[in-house]
Amino acid sequence: MARSWATLGVDLHLEPAASGGLRRGLTDALRDAVRTGRLAPGTRLPSSRSLAADLGIARNTVAEAYADLVAEGWLTARQGSGTRVAERAVSQPSGRGTAPRHREPARPAHSLVPGAPDLAAFPRTEWLRAARRALTTAPYDALGYGDPRGRPELRTALAGYLARARGVRTDPDTIVITAGFTHGLRVLGTVLRARGVGTVAVESYGLDVYWELLQQAGLATPALPYDELGTDTREFGGAGAVLLTPAHQFPMGTALHPDRRAAVVDWARRTGGLVLEDDYDGEFRYDRQPVGALQGLDPDRVIYLGTASKSLAPGLRLGWMVLPPELAREAASAKGRSDTVGVLEQLTLAEFLTSGAYDRHVRSCRLRYRRRRDALAAAVADRAPEVRVTGIAAGLHAVLRLPPGTEQSVIQAAAWQGLALHGLSFHRHPQAVTAPLDALVVGYGTPPDSAWSGALEALCRVLP
Amino acid sequence: MARSWATLGVDLHLEPAASGGLRRGLTDALRDAVRTGRLAPGTRLPSSRSLAADLGIARNTVAEAYADLVAEGWLTARQGSGTRVAERAVSQPSGRGTAPRHREPARPAHSLVPGAPDLAAFPRTEWLRAARRALTTAPYDALGYGDPRGRPELRTALAGYLARARGVRTDPDTIVITAGFTHGLRVLGTVLRARGVGTVAVESYGLDVYWELLQQAGLATPALPYDELGTDTREFGGAGAVLLTPAHQFPMGTALHPDRRAAVVDWARRTGGLVLEDDYDGEFRYDRQPVGALQGLDPDRVIYLGTASKSLAPGLRLGWMVLPPELAREAASAKGRSDTVGVLEQLTLAEFLTSGAYDRHVRSCRLRYRRRRDALAAAVADRAPEVRVTGIAAGLHAVLRLPPGTEQSVIQAAAWQGLALHGLSFHRHPQAVTAPLDALVVGYGTPPDSAWSGALEALCRVLP
Repeated sequence: MARSWATLGVDLHLEPAASGGLRRGLTDALRDAVRTGRLAPGTRLPSSRSLAADLGIARNTVAEAYADLVAEGWLTARQGSGTRVAERAVSQPSGRGTAPRHREPARPAHSLVPGAPDLAAFPRTEWLRAARRALTTAPYDALGYGDPRGRPELRTALAGYLARARGVRTDPDTIVITAGFTHGLRVLGTVLRARGVGTVAVESYGLDVYWELLQQAGLATPALPYDELGTDTREFGGAGAVLLTPAHQFPMGTALHPDRRAAVVDWARRTGGLVLEDDYDGEFRYDRQPVGALQGLDPDRVIYLGTASKSLAPGLRLGWMVLPPELAREAASAKGRSDTVGVLEQLTLAEFLTSGAYDRHVRSCRLRYRRRRDALAAAVADRAPEVRVTGIAAGLHAVLRLPPGTEQSVIQAAAWQGLALHGLSFHRHPQAVTAPLDALVVGYGTPPDSAWSGALEALCRVLP
Repeated sequence: MARSWATLGVDLHLEPAASGGLRRGLTDALRDAVRTGRLAPGTRLPSSRSLAADLGIARNTVAEAYADLVAEGWLTARQGSGTRVAERAVSQPSGRGTAPRHREPARPAHSLVPGAPDLAAFPRTEWLRAARRALTTAPYDALGYGDPRGRPELRTALAGYLARARGVRTDPDTIVITAGFTHGLRVLGTVLRARGVGTVAVESYGLDVYWELLQQAGLATPALPYDELGTDTREFGGAGAVLLTPAHQFPMGTALHPDRRAAVVDWARRTGGLVLEDDYDGEFRYDRQPVGALQGLDPDRVIYLGTASKSLAPGLRLGWMVLPPELAREAASAKGRSDTVGVLEQLTLAEFLTSGAYDRHVRSCRLRYRRRRDALAAAVADRAPEVRVTGIAAGLHAVLRLPPGTEQSVIQAAAWQGLALHGLSFHRHPQAVTAPLDALVVGYGTPPDSAWSGALEALCRVLP
């Protein structure tokens, strides 16, 4: 028979045995809860009076059960601190128990792996301020299941921001909020498949997790050639769509040549193809010639994908897609009613954008990353003159071209030094036809400020 | 040719035409940005000095371009408020523009649709307090991509809470955080399919979106019979798993009979089957006999699924699964590295649980909902004595049994009165063999306090 208590402090579910008397049943049930770890060491139990009231039994019965268990060592009773579960009372049969046992993977001393911003620079105070304003003013029904496209406040704020800062042509109705780029790509995989697309061409260099995600949706992902003008967009075989990083090729770091930009839009118009534009770090450009979104050239054929993972933090799990109206409807439908993104984060980001805090944060990060980029370029020129630093006009990473045949040994040496690094070969498509290059992809945005100079020093030590 | 500005206030991407002079090019580009809505009405432009510096052109050129556009009515210049985009300057060609146009669906005056808590009762102040504490103390690397199982802080807090309040046997390593129940079910669909499961038996009454989700994963979803002891768990055909709401059948509102609880665990042990326990509103019980989690009977065969959607708000998009260790690994792998849940919400919920705020909130809601339940039962007894109120020992909804043949006409009458209601037939499995019942599923948790008595009155008016 199940009973419970509901006191001021805690809820506890108990199932005293039906036979053997109330005191015995309660004692056994409590002992069992402590022994199996359901009641963690140190947990304060309700007073005998409130537990008795909750269970509808005499207070004395509870007091006696407590006394039994104190005598047995399962509980402790101290003046002023009430009755508590004894420390070390828990056995952990067959690997179960409530004790926290976080097995974090062992981490290297330094990481220059690309793909993350400086997480220590996350604007905590500003973010909390925006969260407070957003949650204080939100209508109560904003906390419901919501529109699969995302909150209108955020779509409106993004429409303004993306038009202004990235040259994207959009309105709030053509934006779909996602839990980051990967989530958007998964949704698009489903949409493209449903439209009869069988092949999405990708770049010779990129992220294997994206290729795999498209493959899981049943799509083939052949690689386009890459040359000094960037990805070759003159010929797509029979592909129905293409995934590109036009503003800042990942990881090569170059901007797609204007001829190639025109060519991919021509192809899309001619064939009805779709371009998936991954604008992962469009905010971070350090020179006079920013590259606007390809989407601005043809909003009916280009799907723009952006993310807060580089500008703020991946942990927010916030991204966005700008789609042609029909595709926006299909994407919302593929996401489904419950596959939405946390509303409070959405409202907070909307407030963060509208108040100007986003612009301020991006600007301050841009300064920090530019300084690091300059320090990296100077240090490499000084300490490893044979290594050429490329792809640094924008973004949070650089490509360090190494003497032929040295990439693997440098990565190996870095690992020995406790420095995590990616070689360019890590990002090379298995079917890429371009000749392999020896290079490192150095994520100079990754370390916190306090670790940056140490990481740079460790890098310089392993360069040939 | 692309240029941009980067001033203290805003970023703007511009592409002045290469020919026709700088002033002309800048004027045209700005006009175009305003006309197409890329610059929203009211947007403040950078000062002519800072824009000139950003673009590397003479300040006078910018000042003249601004003056031209003020003269044309695209911009306004006022002492002390700088140069801004004029209000009403935007035309919206072909349905694109940045003006907010939220098309919310028309809503009925009252809603007693089940499935949502009172969103107006969301503990905003307490939640923000927890968010502040959580974000202030979080290590910076908590903001990265993270563990697909979820943050260890939240898994630890949940392990303690679920053991204490729901009788779940778990430790942090066997918990996987999800973006709500639906997300968890989608992940489990993939995992079950990969294990070779072809059929998941479901209940005769439930939510069609769940059945569809399993079907999308390639699983058949036959219905188990339902009788006065609840769902019949004595025979599962060849099913490899079963989806149940043991503590509080949705929507019938009954607890699964102890014999049936034992039977389903027996079946799972005998056949290697798995039980998916949907404990959607286990916290809300109003009587002396709470029903503990089925998972406590056999943590190796029962997967427990819980959610913050009923206890806090669906908009948080937070849920959790407790799985046998091997399945926890498979679920984490099926979620994938980037399919994680917003970290800040996770850390906030962990703090909310640990500080006791969650218990306090649930307790206060329990009181509010019990009062509403009692008011509903009293009003129906008084105003519609032919209607029987059932399934009210727990939860946020009641089942109102109607005279045979009246369900559709009551729903119709409610719609005319502006009252949104679900009939029981809405929740009936298409292949259910149980004889159909005429009934309403009344979500008395849904309206805010201010609308509750009006909704109840509207309901009473349409009852036969």
